[in-house]
Amino acid sequence: MVLEAHLQQAVLLKKVVDAMKDLCKEVNFDCSEKGLQVQSMDSSHVALVALLLRESAFSDFKCDRAASLGMNVESLGKIFKMCGPSDSLKLRWQNDADTVSFQCESGEDDRIADFDLKLMQIESEHMEIPEQQYKVLARLPSSEFMKICRDLKEFGETMQIQASKEGIRFSVQGDIGTGNVMLKPRESEKPEEKVTLTVHESVTATFALRYLVTFSKAAPLCSSVELGLGPDSPLSVKYELENADNGFMQFYLAPKIDE
Amino acid sequence: MVLEAHLQQAVLLKKVVDAMKDLCKEVNFDCSEKGLQVQSMDSSHVALVALLLRESAFSDFKCDRAASLGMNVESLGKIFKMCGPSDSLKLRWQNDADTVSFQCESGEDDRIADFDLKLMQIESEHMEIPEQQYKVLARLPSSEFMKICRDLKEFGETMQIQASKEGIRFSVQGDIGTGNVMLKPRESEKPEEKVTLTVHESVTATFALRYLVTFSKAAPLCSSVELGLGPDSPLSVKYELENADNGFMQFYLAPKIDE
Amino acid sequence: MVLEAHLQQAVLLKKVVDAMKDLCKEVNFDCSEKGLQVQSMDSSHVALVALLLRESAFSDFKCDRAASLGMNVESLGKIFKMCGPSDSLKLRWQNDADTVSFQCESGEDDRIADFDLKLMQIESEHMEIPEQQYKVLARLPSSEFMKICRDLKEFGETMQIQASKEGIRFSVQGDIGTGNVMLKPRESEKPEEKVTLTVHESVTATFALRYLVTFSKAAPLCSSVELGLGPDSPLSVKYELENADNGFMQFYLAPKIDE
Repeated sequence: MVLEAHLQQAVLLKKVVDAMKDLCKEVNFDCSEKGLQVQSMDSSHVALVALLLRESAFSDFKCDRAASLGMNVESLGKIFKMCGPSDSLKLRWQNDADTVSFQCESGEDDRIADFDLKLMQIESEHMEIPEQQYKVLARLPSSEFMKICRDLKEFGETMQIQASKEGIRFSVQGDIGTGNVMLKPRESEKPEEKVTLTVHESVTATFALRYLVTFSKAAPLCSSVELGLGPDSPLSVKYELENADNGFMQFYLAPKIDE
Repeated sequence: MVLEAHLQQAVLLKKVVDAMKDLCKEVNFDCSEKGLQVQSMDSSHVALVALLLRESAFSDFKCDRAASLGMNVESLGKIFKMCGPSDSLKLRWQNDADTVSFQCESGEDDRIADFDLKLMQIESEHMEIPEQQYKVLARLPSSEFMKICRDLKEFGETMQIQASKEGIRFSVQGDIGTGNVMLKPRESEKPEEKVTLTVHESVTATFALRYLVTFSKAAPLCSSVELGLGPDSPLSVKYELENADNGFMQFYLAPKIDE
Repeated sequence: MVLEAHLQQAVLLKKVVDAMKDLCKEVNFDCSEKGLQVQSMDSSHVALVALLLRESAFSDFKCDRAASLGMNVESLGKIFKMCGPSDSLKLRWQNDADTVSFQCESGEDDRIADFDLKLMQIESEHMEIPEQQYKVLARLPSSEFMKICRDLKEFGETMQIQASKEGIRFSVQGDIGTGNVMLKPRESEKPEEKVTLTVHESVTATFALRYLVTFSKAAPLCSSVELGLGPDSPLSVKYELENADNGFMQFYLAPKIDE
C-alpha cells in the first residue's frame, strides 16, 4: 500500500470536490508524506485552484512515496454522494494500481460503501505560486460573499472591488443600471459574522464575475472567506479548513485590465 | 430631490414586485404627496393590476411634485433580491434624473446595497376604476386560495365560482372529469384561517384560471385575500397590506361570457 | 351504490398512486367485498405492480358486487394533490356509472374537494402470482434502499444483489469503476432502522437498476421494505401498510440472465 488515509469526516472531501467541480474536469491529487495537494487551472485557463490537505487533517495518514493520482472530478462527486453525513472515509492506493479505492463507513460499521475508481493520466505542471504580499486582506462571512456575487451577477459580467480602510465595495455596471454592495468593518462575538480589513494601501481592481460566483460556492468549507487584493495582481479567495492548520482551499483569478 | 421615501421593510416592495412580475413587464410608479401608485393592464390586456402604497406605509415620505417613474419589473425583482430579510429601503429620485436610486441597509448599517436603475418612458393612461358594489365579498386564507387555483388548474382552463350564503364553490370541468372545491364559512381565532362571506345576492361567474393562479401568488403580501364578485362584473382579488390603512394590491379580471 | 369506501387518511391512496405513476399509465382497480386490488404490468412489460388494500384498511367499506374500475394513474395523481395532509376520503361508484367520485374532506368539514373521474375500459388479465418460497428475505429501511438505488444508478445500468448471512451487498460495475454498498444485519430499538436477513441459501442475482429506483420511490408508504430473493426467480420488493393486516404494495422484477 503506497497511500492509506483515513478521514474522520468524509463530508470534508465531498465539500472540496463540490467546490472544484464547476472549474475543473480532471485533476491530479498529489500525495506525499505531507498530505494531499491539488493544483489545477480551470478549463478556460483563467483561474487557478489550489487545495492543501495536510496529513494532520487525517486521523491516520501513510504515504510511502510521492505520487500523482489523476481523477475525474465529476466521478468523485458521484462517489461522495454515497457517503452519509457522518461517515468516515478510507482512501487507499496500492503500488501502481490503476484504481484508487474509497471506502465510506457509518459510525456503527454496519453500512460500508466502497468504490474503486479508475485512475487517469493527466498532464500537469506544478507551478510554484509565490507567497504574495497583498495590499489588502479582507475577511468576511463566506455566505455573504456568495450572496453578493450571485446578486450582482444578475446585472453584469464584470465586478469591480474597491477596498480601503472604510470598507470593501463590490460594484457592477450593466444595461439596466449600476449596483453596489458596501461592507464596512463589523465586530461580532460570532467570528463567522465579522468583517475585518487589513489595508496597507487602498486597492481597486476588476474581475470576471462568473469565476467569483463559482469560487464562492466553496462556502460550505468555511464560515468565513479571505480575499487578498493587490494592484494588478491576481485576486486570492481562500477558505481555510475548520482547523486552519489542516489546510485550505484557495482560488486565484487574474484581474481584468482596462485597455 | 423630488422623491425621497423610506420603507422600514424593503421586503414589502419585494413582495409587491414579485406579485406583479408575471403580469406586467414595465409599469409606471406614479408618485405624489399621497404615496406611490401603480395601475397597469397585464401584457395581454385582460387583467388589471392596481397597487396603492399610501405615504403612511413609509417611515418617511417626501414628494414635491407628482411624477411617473417608468420601470422594468424584472429589473426591480433583481434589485430587491439584493435586500436582506430585515433590510430597510430608501428610494430617491432627483428632479428629472434618468435614474432612480434604491438603497437597502441592514439594521446595523454595516452593509449597504444600492442600485441606480435607469428609468424608461412608458405609455399609460390612468383609468378611473369606479368603486364597485359587489354582490358577494368573500374573505379566505390567501394560501388556501392559491392552492385551490393551482390544484384546479391541473384539470382545465376555466374556473367557475359560485358564491352563496352556504359557501363559495370553485369548479373546473375538464377532459378527465369535473372537480370542485367548496369552502363553507369558517370561524377561527386566527383571523388568517377564517372564511367569511357577505352575500347580497348569489353570484355565479367564470374566469380564465391562469390569471387567477398568477394573482394568487401575491399570497405573501397578506394572510387573507378578499374576492369581490358581481354578475357580469369583473372579479376583484384584493390583498391588503399588513396594516390595511397603508394600502393594498388589487387585481381585476373580466369574466368569461358564454355565447 | 355498488362501491362506497371511506378512508380515514386520503394520503394513503395518494402515496400508493405516487408509487405507481412512474410504472403504469392506466390500471384497473378491482373491487370486491374483500377490498381494493390492483395488478398491472409496467408499460414495458418487465415489472409487475401488485396492490392490496383490504377492506379493514377503510373505516367503512361496502361493495355489492365485484367490478373493475379502469383509471388513468396520472389523473389520480392530480386528484390526490387536492387532498390536504389530514383529509379523509370517500370513494363512490354507482351501478354502471361511467365516472367514479372522490371526495376529500378536512377534519372540520368546512372544506370539501370532490372530483368525478371518467372511467376507462382497460384490457387486463388477472395473473395468479404463486406464493414464492424465497431463499432470502431481507428487511431494511426503505429510505436506505432508496438512497442505495439512486447512488448506484449514477455508475451503471445493472445492479447485482448478493445476500448471505453476513449481509446484503449491492454492486454496480460501470465505466468509471465499481461501487458496492454492504449492509450488515443491524439491531435497533427503532424498527425502521433495523436490517434483518432470513437466509435459507445465499443468493446472487442481477437486475435492471432503473426499475429498482422506481420501486424504491414507494418509501413514503412504509419505513421498511422487504426484499425477497431466489436463484433465477423474480425479485420481490414489498411495502406493507402501516398496519400490515390492511394490505401492501409489492413490485416484482425479473432477473437479468447472463448469456
